[in-house]
Amino acid sequence: MTRVLVTGGTGLIGRHAVATLVAAGAEVHVAARGTPSAALPEAAAVHRLNLLDRTATAALVRRVRPSHLLHLAWVTAHGTYWRTADNLDWLAASLLLARAFAECGGRRVVAAGSCAEYDWSDPALITGDCRDDTTPIRPHTLYGATKDACRRALAAFADATGLAFAWGRVFLLFDPAEDRRRLVASIITQLGAGRRAACSSGTQVRDFLAAADVGAAFAALTLSDVGGEVNIGSGEARTIAEVAQTIGSLMGRADLIGLGDLPMRPDDPPRLVADVRRLRQEVGFCPQLNLDARIEDCIRALAARSAGEAESFLNTSAPNFE
Amino acid sequence: MTRVLVTGGTGLIGRHAVATLVAAGAEVHVAARGTPSAALPEAAAVHRLNLLDRTATAALVRRVRPSHLLHLAWVTAHGTYWRTADNLDWLAASLLLARAFAECGGRRVVAAGSCAEYDWSDPALITGDCRDDTTPIRPHTLYGATKDACRRALAAFADATGLAFAWGRVFLLFDPAEDRRRLVASIITQLGAGRRAACSSGTQVRDFLAAADVGAAFAALTLSDVGGEVNIGSGEARTIAEVAQTIGSLMGRADLIGLGDLPMRPDDPPRLVADVRRLRQEVGFCPQLNLDARIEDCIRALAARSAGEAESFLNTSAPNFE
Repeated sequence: MTRVLVTGGTGLIGRHAVATLVAAGAEVHVAARGTPSAALPEAAAVHRLNLLDRTATAALVRRVRPSHLLHLAWVTAHGTYWRTADNLDWLAASLLLARAFAECGGRRVVAAGSCAEYDWSDPALITGDCRDDTTPIRPHTLYGATKDACRRALAAFADATGLAFAWGRVFLLFDPAEDRRRLVASIITQLGAGRRAACSSGTQVRDFLAAADVGAAFAALTLSDVGGEVNIGSGEARTIAEVAQTIGSLMGRADLIGLGDLPMRPDDPPRLVADVRRLRQEVGFCPQLNLDARIEDCIRALAARSAGEAESFLNTSAPNFE
Repeated sequence: MTRVLVTGGTGLIGRHAVATLVAAGAEVHVAARGTPSAALPEAAAVHRLNLLDRTATAALVRRVRPSHLLHLAWVTAHGTYWRTADNLDWLAASLLLARAFAECGGRRVVAAGSCAEYDWSDPALITGDCRDDTTPIRPHTLYGATKDACRRALAAFADATGLAFAWGRVFLLFDPAEDRRRLVASIITQLGAGRRAACSSGTQVRDFLAAADVGAAFAALTLSDVGGEVNIGSGEARTIAEVAQTIGSLMGRADLIGLGDLPMRPDDPPRLVADVRRLRQEVGFCPQLNLDARIEDCIRALAARSAGEAESFLNTSAPNFE
């Protein structure tokens, strides 16, 4: 019996992971801080939990006694998560959760890492992909450093206790439910409102994967017996400009894509693309839809959502109603 | 005003660090789990605290408002500390303590790392010393891995918040108050009782430093403005056999040193010696006494202590009373 406890199960990645795990026949328990706003499958049991409360966390783990732990929860507040001291709390909470899980008979832990663990200044990345095993680890942010520290401590803990352990490194994701200030949602929102979307020159090469696919990849990793670090990406190199222009042409407003309106950030690495051979060959995961189809989904979902909102892009963008 | 909060201030290293800090004129506050058994200077304020209790820890930090934090507390139970899950708790507690400290105006954190963070299988260590900056980090134990993770997270936190941060890596220490199963104390105890001290062949080269000097070095590091990783060792290469024979000849019982009685542990690295240039030149610290003098102190202190004990080595070793 595979009984999975999912933390962050109502988040951008988690809701999709939960759906995939339920569809795969696992017994799924979701730890959620408040009342979950995301629609979760009925088959998933939802438990209210503040993961930063150690006693409550241990009590839930004792009650559920999961065989698998998919730990996705972490601080993700847009813009501030790179540097906030909350990263320390989430690192601490992750360690104590893993200990409680192991002590209640848990067998396999899968947790979310980040491409921010890699050394973005590694010259090999200018032309090559981030390799899960050989690209140097040298995080430049508190977020990346605490994720890295989390992996090191959990891997050693797994080693000492016989726990199975895998670590999925997330690259750039997008989702209709993401913060409207994030790249894809912000461009769609601007264009929907008939406003120019200010961008940098957009020459940065990135690895974009829809949160639906990221979630499904984590579900597959959880149910596999692959150990160690696994990049969770598309493996496809796209420039930010290409993604912006794709949105522009899908929405029929390519004229509103303001490439070069904003300066490049000096610390923005030129290229961050996942080598996904482990994900493809060992985990056996492949995204269900290609990037353009996922962006189209995003546009449709955001349009549908804003139809019910006062300040929606479809309401203010007359041509859409002609 | 230098107001130092010392955790683990009643431990092997801590009690000596506290004495040195008090002597240097700092206002010293000691966080102690129970009633401190070690004699601490009267000038040090002792606070009862369970560091694993996050709320109590934050409350103490708020009350004391230290400018400096010397964080020495960690799980140290003899024999089990290499692998116990308690290492996760101490890592978590260390992070939350550092956050509370920074949020209450703290300026400088110094914490205890370990030579167990280094890659003991690095071929360069067969003839060379552990360099604080260049020897590869690759802990082989949960203890080493959590210490390493702690350093990485705290260094990034310090970087993000402007906190000053230093990390002292401890090598082999000894002290009259150490667990009687540890190398130096166990040999002294055996010889004192007229019993043979079973040893391995003792060819392993190590870096021994008395806890008194380790504590004084941490005090000096705390009061300095040196940042980053600093080895806390003697820099002197001695084989285990040499140390055992020194004890034997100082106690007049070299005949009882049973070199080769025990097999070598297969994972025991041949050589672990600290490069102490940063400690000497940047921190400006030098041990007060040489190794032989410290071992002699140890023998004297253990003899004095066992004079009052029922099963003491002096009581059962008749020649000592002639």
